Amino acid sequence: MTLGEVARLVGGELRGDAAAVIERVAGLEDAGPGSLTFFADKRHAGLLAQTRATAVLVPPDAPPVSTATIVVPHPYVAFVQIVEALHPPRRPGAAVHPTAVVAASASLGPGAFIGPWVVIGERVRIGRDAVLHAGVVVYDDVVIGERFTAHARAVVREGARLGDRVVLHAGAVVGSDGFGYLPLPDGPRAIPQIGGVVLEDDVEIGANATVDRAALGDTVIGRGTKIDNLVMVAHGCQVGPGSLLAAQVGLAGGTVLGRGVMLGGQVGSAGHLTIGDGARVAAKSGISSDLAAGGTYGGIPAVDIRAWRRMTSGWLRLGELLRRVRRLEQGSEGGRGDGGAD
Amino acid sequence: MTLGEVARLVGGELRGDAAAVIERVAGLEDAGPGSLTFFADKRHAGLLAQTRATAVLVPPDAPPVSTATIVVPHPYVAFVQIVEALHPPRRPGAAVHPTAVVAASASLGPGAFIGPWVVIGERVRIGRDAVLHAGVVVYDDVVIGERFTAHARAVVREGARLGDRVVLHAGAVVGSDGFGYLPLPDGPRAIPQIGGVVLEDDVEIGANATVDRAALGDTVIGRGTKIDNLVMVAHGCQVGPGSLLAAQVGLAGGTVLGRGVMLGGQVGSAGHLTIGDGARVAAKSGISSDLAAGGTYGGIPAVDIRAWRRMTSGWLRLGELLRRVRRLEQGSEGGRGDGGAD
Amino acid sequence: MTLGEVARLVGGELRGDAAAVIERVAGLEDAGPGSLTFFADKRHAGLLAQTRATAVLVPPDAPPVSTATIVVPHPYVAFVQIVEALHPPRRPGAAVHPTAVVAASASLGPGAFIGPWVVIGERVRIGRDAVLHAGVVVYDDVVIGERFTAHARAVVREGARLGDRVVLHAGAVVGSDGFGYLPLPDGPRAIPQIGGVVLEDDVEIGANATVDRAALGDTVIGRGTKIDNLVMVAHGCQVGPGSLLAAQVGLAGGTVLGRGVMLGGQVGSAGHLTIGDGARVAAKSGISSDLAAGGTYGGIPAVDIRAWRRMTSGWLRLGELLRRVRRLEQGSEGGRGDGGAD
Repeated sequence: MTLGEVARLVGGELRGDAAAVIERVAGLEDAGPGSLTFFADKRHAGLLAQTRATAVLVPPDAPPVSTATIVVPHPYVAFVQIVEALHPPRRPGAAVHPTAVVAASASLGPGAFIGPWVVIGERVRIGRDAVLHAGVVVYDDVVIGERFTAHARAVVREGARLGDRVVLHAGAVVGSDGFGYLPLPDGPRAIPQIGGVVLEDDVEIGANATVDRAALGDTVIGRGTKIDNLVMVAHGCQVGPGSLLAAQVGLAGGTVLGRGVMLGGQVGSAGHLTIGDGARVAAKSGISSDLAAGGTYGGIPAVDIRAWRRMTSGWLRLGELLRRVRRLEQGSEGGRGDGGAD
Repeated sequence: MTLGEVARLVGGELRGDAAAVIERVAGLEDAGPGSLTFFADKRHAGLLAQTRATAVLVPPDAPPVSTATIVVPHPYVAFVQIVEALHPPRRPGAAVHPTAVVAASASLGPGAFIGPWVVIGERVRIGRDAVLHAGVVVYDDVVIGERFTAHARAVVREGARLGDRVVLHAGAVVGSDGFGYLPLPDGPRAIPQIGGVVLEDDVEIGANATVDRAALGDTVIGRGTKIDNLVMVAHGCQVGPGSLLAAQVGLAGGTVLGRGVMLGGQVGSAGHLTIGDGARVAAKSGISSDLAAGGTYGGIPAVDIRAWRRMTSGWLRLGELLRRVRRLEQGSEGGRGDGGAD
Repeated sequence: MTLGEVARLVGGELRGDAAAVIERVAGLEDAGPGSLTFFADKRHAGLLAQTRATAVLVPPDAPPVSTATIVVPHPYVAFVQIVEALHPPRRPGAAVHPTAVVAASASLGPGAFIGPWVVIGERVRIGRDAVLHAGVVVYDDVVIGERFTAHARAVVREGARLGDRVVLHAGAVVGSDGFGYLPLPDGPRAIPQIGGVVLEDDVEIGANATVDRAALGDTVIGRGTKIDNLVMVAHGCQVGPGSLLAAQVGLAGGTVLGRGVMLGGQVGSAGHLTIGDGARVAAKSGISSDLAAGGTYGGIPAVDIRAWRRMTSGWLRLGELLRRVRRLEQGSEGGRGDGGAD
């Protein structure tokens, strides 16, 4: 790709040699000759000044650079466009591996790639252009839309309903039984988990993550929501569209998330509460009550992030505070003789 | 099922039309005509008042309802009975899929369903009526009791011993090597993990959860204990009977749990400590010392839950406390001229 | 093995009958007649005094024991040597199971054991003496060194590069796509993850753990680093050699760990920060800024472990502190009439 072609593709203004050739893309720190990179974070101005890249995607207000630049409003978005052009997603050609076990009553749309040892159960319906890598197991009565991708060993339990363009990463489990027990005197007794699970269009589930079916009704993951590795979504959760759940997040049963919620890594939420649209929660927080829409939260229990920051800086001053109170007490004791014991 | 039949089955008192037909079960919020639901939590009295369900299982002291009711001592328990009657667990018929690889020296009890791509190693013994879904791998020398259920891709490592009615959910791993290393100057050196792992009767292990074998002796999960998705039980843990470990709990090596212990989601425990019978620990807590039987604990480190609640409310007042101490110091300074610096 | 042989093997001084026979090894608590055990932790002196073991490996300064002893500088290291001698690692004989699907363009070194349902993709190269248990999936273009061990259902995604003696436990996933999205107005848009993943020699990855490929460049796990079950290493992390990551640790994207770093269970780290050589971080901590080499840290956010301990003990005194400040205010109010409101 020449710089001229890059500039045209992203609709940017080229300052440099339109005939120069881009061979690869790289981050600002690693980019060498032949590379295209981008500058999106002002804290990296030092890296930008020293770059040996052939060209840099920059915003209009970027500091001057010695190398070629392409000026665009959103350099990172433009960079992703170029990455996609240079690395178009490869998908295997249509084929059903002879070792796959596909039930006679299952229906597969055209263009499917079905890898070795895949199992597709009775009455399963899968739309066109699916890619099921080796060892994927789809239980009975599952319905899946178009352009489904499942990496090795993903499992979809009976009756799950998946929309179009859903992606399951390796080892993900969708529709496992919810963890529901009656604590009877002779030990916990399982509550039948007869509900379902729905993944809407464009949902992505990370490697070894688990989404349980509901006890009654459905567990629902909304359109375009992306869930990272090792996340747990318990029975009956309703996760709104366009949300991002980072790795190792855990949602207890019946949690309701609005649209565009962002949960940092290892966040946990108690069950049966509501997290409003657009709420953001810092990594490792523990949510124990409803969170209002639009806010940013942190801590265990999660509170407004500014309150959490004040708390954590307050903690560091606890020792000092104890000393100051002791000094006040001694002063007061000297003067009045009734100070508190330490 | 008619309401009369429902009432008979749960031994309840019917107030309504015994001939009315129940077509499905549902939660109080979702239940419409044709549904049976239940009222077990007084906070849902508002939902009860508006219900459109055909009938509601209620306790003797429930507020009056316009719909039919069946009065029982424990509505949720009765509801579970009805769910079980309407949705008897389905199990596949006895069959060994032609693609399964079962060692000649293995023995399988009558009534087994062995799915595609299942692997059963040398000298394995499995009791009657087992259900092994697609891709389950049982290593050599494993002994398993009656009515075993393993969902797709569960793995049982060599020599593990499982009791009757054990359930492994998809992707669970039982008997993986413990994480034990000597920190030698030239890098960590693995300590051979030559112990075993025992799951007693009625144990359930969640999707993608892992239970490691012991370095020496056995890791033991007691009778009737239920372990949720993505839980880690490290080498040498002894988990008592009837305990519940919610999702993403992690127990470090050698942790000892008593009977009927309940750990909330994402709880972590340091190793080689003891958690007494019936102890309950709030979600996300970090256990760093022994916990006495019967208590309720929370926090990092976990303390009595009331102390933890006081601490978290105290945190929120830290800023105020700092201001109050500063004011006291200023007053004291004005009076005596020796106040603390801020 | 006789005690004389044991003493010779570990280079220790035997105090007891050289002809006595050792039949098994056990921990100090469980060791009975016929057992060899070891004493390495002075807190276990009580157990040592009562031991019924046939012999105990002890350090030079151990208290006197009634049973035979073998004096060595490091009893635990010597014990591991004996365990290894009594339990040499078994590996299956060389064989490729007829059900394995190995691409014609793949190359396998001599001595390989390839279990049932293993899938090895195009152009994969694996060195000598590999052991791939049932259901392992290796995608295209993966390069793996000598003496590779992969337990059931481990997955290695396309293009990953693994050194010699790498061990993957059951269900581990190496090279899954990183979690990178542009938050565009119409929903999150995936950023192509075109980078790779490198596991250097002697790396071990725990059961159901996940190591993502980089967006650009490589995710790297350094030589000899051991990673426990259910750990998440996100895209672009650089983990130094000889490090230990305990179960359920999560590293966000771009985290850099030095050599010999030790992270306790459930530790989480924010991305794009640096943890220095030899740093140790207590279980459950949350790392939100760079950590200097050699330190020991704890807490959320992680600080020097001594500061963290002071903070947690300070928390327990918060209620008392509030009371003391109130008393001071009352005193001051009485004297001056201008105290703070509570």
